[in-house]
Amino acid sequence: MTRPFRMADLSWTDYRDRLAEEDPVVLVPVGAIEQHGPHLPLATDCLIPEAVCGACASRGGRLLAPSITYGYKSLPRCGGGQHFCGTTSVDAATLINQVKDMVREFARHGVSKLAFVVGHMENTWFVNEACDLALREARMLGLKAPRIMTVGYWEFLGEDTIRAAFGDTFPDWSLEHAGIMETSVMLHLHPSLVTMDRLRPHPPAKLPLWDMWPYDERLVPADGVLATAIGASAEKGRLFYDEYVATLSGALDTAFAEPAD
Amino acid sequence: MTRPFRMADLSWTDYRDRLAEEDPVVLVPVGAIEQHGPHLPLATDCLIPEAVCGACASRGGRLLAPSITYGYKSLPRCGGGQHFCGTTSVDAATLINQVKDMVREFARHGVSKLAFVVGHMENTWFVNEACDLALREARMLGLKAPRIMTVGYWEFLGEDTIRAAFGDTFPDWSLEHAGIMETSVMLHLHPSLVTMDRLRPHPPAKLPLWDMWPYDERLVPADGVLATAIGASAEKGRLFYDEYVATLSGALDTAFAEPAD
Amino acid sequence: MTRPFRMADLSWTDYRDRLAEEDPVVLVPVGAIEQHGPHLPLATDCLIPEAVCGACASRGGRLLAPSITYGYKSLPRCGGGQHFCGTTSVDAATLINQVKDMVREFARHGVSKLAFVVGHMENTWFVNEACDLALREARMLGLKAPRIMTVGYWEFLGEDTIRAAFGDTFPDWSLEHAGIMETSVMLHLHPSLVTMDRLRPHPPAKLPLWDMWPYDERLVPADGVLATAIGASAEKGRLFYDEYVATLSGALDTAFAEPAD
Amino acid sequence: MTRPFRMADLSWTDYRDRLAEEDPVVLVPVGAIEQHGPHLPLATDCLIPEAVCGACASRGGRLLAPSITYGYKSLPRCGGGQHFCGTTSVDAATLINQVKDMVREFARHGVSKLAFVVGHMENTWFVNEACDLALREARMLGLKAPRIMTVGYWEFLGEDTIRAAFGDTFPDWSLEHAGIMETSVMLHLHPSLVTMDRLRPHPPAKLPLWDMWPYDERLVPADGVLATAIGASAEKGRLFYDEYVATLSGALDTAFAEPAD
Amino acid sequence: MTRPFRMADLSWTDYRDRLAEEDPVVLVPVGAIEQHGPHLPLATDCLIPEAVCGACASRGGRLLAPSITYGYKSLPRCGGGQHFCGTTSVDAATLINQVKDMVREFARHGVSKLAFVVGHMENTWFVNEACDLALREARMLGLKAPRIMTVGYWEFLGEDTIRAAFGDTFPDWSLEHAGIMETSVMLHLHPSLVTMDRLRPHPPAKLPLWDMWPYDERLVPADGVLATAIGASAEKGRLFYDEYVATLSGALDTAFAEPAD
Amino acid sequence: MTRPFRMADLSWTDYRDRLAEEDPVVLVPVGAIEQHGPHLPLATDCLIPEAVCGACASRGGRLLAPSITYGYKSLPRCGGGQHFCGTTSVDAATLINQVKDMVREFARHGVSKLAFVVGHMENTWFVNEACDLALREARMLGLKAPRIMTVGYWEFLGEDTIRAAFGDTFPDWSLEHAGIMETSVMLHLHPSLVTMDRLRPHPPAKLPLWDMWPYDERLVPADGVLATAIGASAEKGRLFYDEYVATLSGALDTAFAEPAD
Repeated sequence: MTRPFRMADLSWTDYRDRLAEEDPVVLVPVGAIEQHGPHLPLATDCLIPEAVCGACASRGGRLLAPSITYGYKSLPRCGGGQHFCGTTSVDAATLINQVKDMVREFARHGVSKLAFVVGHMENTWFVNEACDLALREARMLGLKAPRIMTVGYWEFLGEDTIRAAFGDTFPDWSLEHAGIMETSVMLHLHPSLVTMDRLRPHPPAKLPLWDMWPYDERLVPADGVLATAIGASAEKGRLFYDEYVATLSGALDTAFAEPAD
Repeated sequence: MTRPFRMADLSWTDYRDRLAEEDPVVLVPVGAIEQHGPHLPLATDCLIPEAVCGACASRGGRLLAPSITYGYKSLPRCGGGQHFCGTTSVDAATLINQVKDMVREFARHGVSKLAFVVGHMENTWFVNEACDLALREARMLGLKAPRIMTVGYWEFLGEDTIRAAFGDTFPDWSLEHAGIMETSVMLHLHPSLVTMDRLRPHPPAKLPLWDMWPYDERLVPADGVLATAIGASAEKGRLFYDEYVATLSGALDTAFAEPAD
Repeated sequence: MTRPFRMADLSWTDYRDRLAEEDPVVLVPVGAIEQHGPHLPLATDCLIPEAVCGACASRGGRLLAPSITYGYKSLPRCGGGQHFCGTTSVDAATLINQVKDMVREFARHGVSKLAFVVGHMENTWFVNEACDLALREARMLGLKAPRIMTVGYWEFLGEDTIRAAFGDTFPDWSLEHAGIMETSVMLHLHPSLVTMDRLRPHPPAKLPLWDMWPYDERLVPADGVLATAIGASAEKGRLFYDEYVATLSGALDTAFAEPAD
Repeated sequence: MTRPFRMADLSWTDYRDRLAEEDPVVLVPVGAIEQHGPHLPLATDCLIPEAVCGACASRGGRLLAPSITYGYKSLPRCGGGQHFCGTTSVDAATLINQVKDMVREFARHGVSKLAFVVGHMENTWFVNEACDLALREARMLGLKAPRIMTVGYWEFLGEDTIRAAFGDTFPDWSLEHAGIMETSVMLHLHPSLVTMDRLRPHPPAKLPLWDMWPYDERLVPADGVLATAIGASAEKGRLFYDEYVATLSGALDTAFAEPAD
Repeated sequence: MTRPFRMADLSWTDYRDRLAEEDPVVLVPVGAIEQHGPHLPLATDCLIPEAVCGACASRGGRLLAPSITYGYKSLPRCGGGQHFCGTTSVDAATLINQVKDMVREFARHGVSKLAFVVGHMENTWFVNEACDLALREARMLGLKAPRIMTVGYWEFLGEDTIRAAFGDTFPDWSLEHAGIMETSVMLHLHPSLVTMDRLRPHPPAKLPLWDMWPYDERLVPADGVLATAIGASAEKGRLFYDEYVATLSGALDTAFAEPAD
Repeated sequence: MTRPFRMADLSWTDYRDRLAEEDPVVLVPVGAIEQHGPHLPLATDCLIPEAVCGACASRGGRLLAPSITYGYKSLPRCGGGQHFCGTTSVDAATLINQVKDMVREFARHGVSKLAFVVGHMENTWFVNEACDLALREARMLGLKAPRIMTVGYWEFLGEDTIRAAFGDTFPDWSLEHAGIMETSVMLHLHPSLVTMDRLRPHPPAKLPLWDMWPYDERLVPADGVLATAIGASAEKGRLFYDEYVATLSGALDTAFAEPAD
């Protein structure tokens, strides 16, 4: 029988005891509420890392902390942009402070291994800034900070899997928004939340190598699908998902194996 | 059949259409990850308002937005204080910015009726500050702001219900932390997350009428239960819960009935 | 003969010597410039705690520091709201930083016992946030922070006094704005600043249990008196005032009696 | 008979009516709690501008708003520095926000002429920054901002008066801290708060033309008197004071005479 | 004869006239002071984009504004990390505000086309956040904002050039820090600032796919060269440089061709 | 042969070694991009302190760090005001954070003597605030802070030189904006950037002793020259410049001579 692994479900005494007895890695998904085409739910960037982290937690004696649900603003070239209805985002300063406050708290609890697992590419740099500031603050407070890992869950996918799923048409991770990968994983994890028959074929977004402010909304497909999701399947989704769980688990083992010195 | 009412589960197109067609109230629970005694989970202040708001949404054509999960710091006199392991809180500025950013986004979506339903008393004043700043910002942007309601879900409980549940021993809402009310509602909603046999009788917290910085941790019961939860039951929980849903629904109807003008 | 007790009137050398010799409690009133009906001055929330703290200081060997004059924004349900002309308020961040900076300074002076005595209910949570941040900063600086008390001066009034003054009609402290209590105390302390004959009878404010943004100004009595002040008298004021001084003095003795450890 | 001129003493209705009927200049002293030698009180930088502004208000139909009591940090070369016990200062950001919030409020009241009269040289640049930001914010809000004057009360003293009071030994305004001018004015205004017999002759502070961080405290006279106050008298004080009132009144007339356009 | 193209060298009247007559693109390099191995100067990330932008300006009727010299903190995986002596960086908030303030000013000047050309990869996301906030502020102020492009100067290099310069060993842009590309361009532009004989062969940095806080400094080559610069030459540098100038010029033409509408 | 003295040109290893071997003073010019009349370039307030500091560095074994190029907003009475096209300024908070971040970095490098040499009078108070905050932060971090000097380069000019250059018409430093001093030094340093024949005689700015928000732009000469530059010459410029270099060098020697203790 699996022990409980969701911090949210534990009483404070159980949580305290788990930290004291096992010194587990604590995983925090950092998602977004963001348009993911007409066929995927707004919480896609939360649901996938929550599932991946949950599996890493339940199988590996780790703990899953509640997600940071609302993420940084959507950029046209990786999330379609901030003009879509439904995308509900926070400014950089808000996300930075959210993460920084949490690190201070986990440090107080005695957590020594902490991982922010990003489900929304735009969060990455601000989570990193927060970690740097949190370490600085911990030093100021004379507080032993946890070692912290920040990582996008999609980073580890092997080339074989990519080729198996995409053939020669992998569009690059930034454009893989509401596309074959995310759609497949959602078909595997939450099929009832996916409406495949709404997908219409259209070419991928043709965004330039630069960013414009304001940007031309016409360069972003009107349905918010940056690269086609046609061809997604639960089977592919299982493939992706299993590899995410396996590679993230391995990365966590590696990252937290040796003492920081 | 109930229509979907969770914003997180909707695609952006469905969400957009719901707003356009029904102009629904959008409900945002504002909870906390906070110690709730040895018998209740850390997420209690999220789980209860999520359930109450979910019922108000599903029965009333409203939408339930994802919660603000991590709340403001715990005060000794209403949450036991910030020295407990597991309590994972943010500073005032973080919560204020979180709420303010969200109001800006909902305004952009065209939401005209927004309710922040507080599940953790300490959040209240900072959510209000955020709403004031958000209206100021909306005015600056020339953006039509939603009318916003902020409320604690527990506010509406009738005296009859209180007397029925507590007899003459109602300890005041601030001390009703991890006590009979919260425990009963959790027994009704999530019995598997409640461990009643861990409860030990002890007198309620005897905190003075003032706050001290730093405070004396010895004034707070060591288990985090401010007023006893012995006597809690799922039946009482159903009573509370049903009344919360009914009174909050009524309050939403009243509050958003007439145009703000 | 009374020794001087106002910090503002002391030279820095006298102040330094008093701290070194007596380690006195330093009292800081935290007031507001806020409408108090047509019959009370805008500074009412400063004048009352200044008098109460002054008496606590002069009789008890304590020191009275200059007030924080401009307070947090007025809420409809405890101060009539921010739409009144004359109400001159600061944002949460401003008040928080004001208090935090002052704690840092008092710590540098060597003050070991500090009390912020709130005269305006809306200030309370932000003063508390400031104290929490100030203790965190003191820890960062390796600075010995004072023990700090935060309290509303009205908190200690006994039920007997309430009953003697209000009979059965005590409207709750939040509505007691520009009402019988404040008016009576002002008649006792500053009769020349009170204009009783401007009072017109009207029912108390009928505000809902929630807050609205923006709120409906029509729910607030147009004159800013939330609950009637008719019936106020200097005699009642003396009663209130004497009890405030006595109970606050007692509370200070209690709060600062034992070492924080 | 003088009409009331202190905003703090007015009811909100009287204040509102005064604004509507007379469109008066509103004067805000911006002082400090700062060491002023062994012979002057900590509030000297509040007391002088309050008296000067009060006279300008009472004689000229203007209104005197409550002071900003706690000012910016003391610099060695104009206030002795921040190492003195009793000096109780705020950071730049705090003072800037305090002033900015107040401008927003006075603008809402309909004040069209506002003057921040600085009593502590170190405040000057931060009050100016606040005014710039406040005008920017007013523009954002579509709010008619007042025309604002910022000025040090000492700026207008004529050379004749300086020569009459100092002979050839005027040390420059920045060193005139707790010296002949401030001491004389305090002897005129508040003789009971001045203890002349504590003054000991010593040469003026010999500070370099640059600032050092940290600075060498030994360059600042240990008693905090930057240039001698020996020779101060109530008579000189009356001379200074009368000229301050007259010249500030004239400056206010000039500054607010023509429309800003 | 080339007309002056450096904003810094123009008088304000010449600058004003150029804006009015030609509506030029204004280019702002956003560099860093950061270790670039033992063989390149600390200002490498300023010098290259200044040269590229200068050429784009002088040849294309554009204006070159002074650089933002101090950039965001160095990450191990693209700049070696923040533990190197000499790397002199600012926090995210500082860079964001710097860029935001500049956009406000250029908007006031009437600049309609503005490009921030990033010379230090770590700056990218914070410059983008600044642009988003600047557009929001411009909307608040009713100020016509420029259209803004943000881009890394290295983005446009064609695959042919990469292959010609690196053969099959191109290490990815993030590792190309103090490597063949930057060294070659510096040999072309500023040969006197390059000391090739200090280079020692070592394998490229072997950094994981995730970030760690704190990171293991041993994973970063001790000399700060992430991928070898051996093989760099002025000739390759000219190749790179010419292509940067040509492709950035083309990109600027494209980006600012059509009205934003 | 002069050793390199520009930090920007050094490799990190050379910079590190210089710090270790010589413990040099590091000089940071703090300039502005600001109108300087029709005859001087926008970067005048950078170019002069860069030259002065460069000479102090090259002749005295000191290091010249890259300038802070964009300075605080221009005030009418010392820079003409913020309405001029070309003046490109940052808010107080931005400049404060820029300087504070840099102090943290130089402290990390092991710099023990740091001088911010101001070229734009309006920067002064904000640079000082930054230094105070930086020392506080260094104390929090347990980081040995450098001793820091802040100074305007113009402060040291002797009365003889002033009389020699201006006769009896020295207008005070604040009005000496784009006037005889700055113009002469620029004629000495960068004659190709000065266009003397654009100067038209007009009386000096007649600004009052107070500041107004908003200010009356008509009080500022339309060309931005606050006091006439007619009469400027390269010869005078050399005189000024040589004295600046000599007196600043002397001041640096004095200021950093003795240990801070």
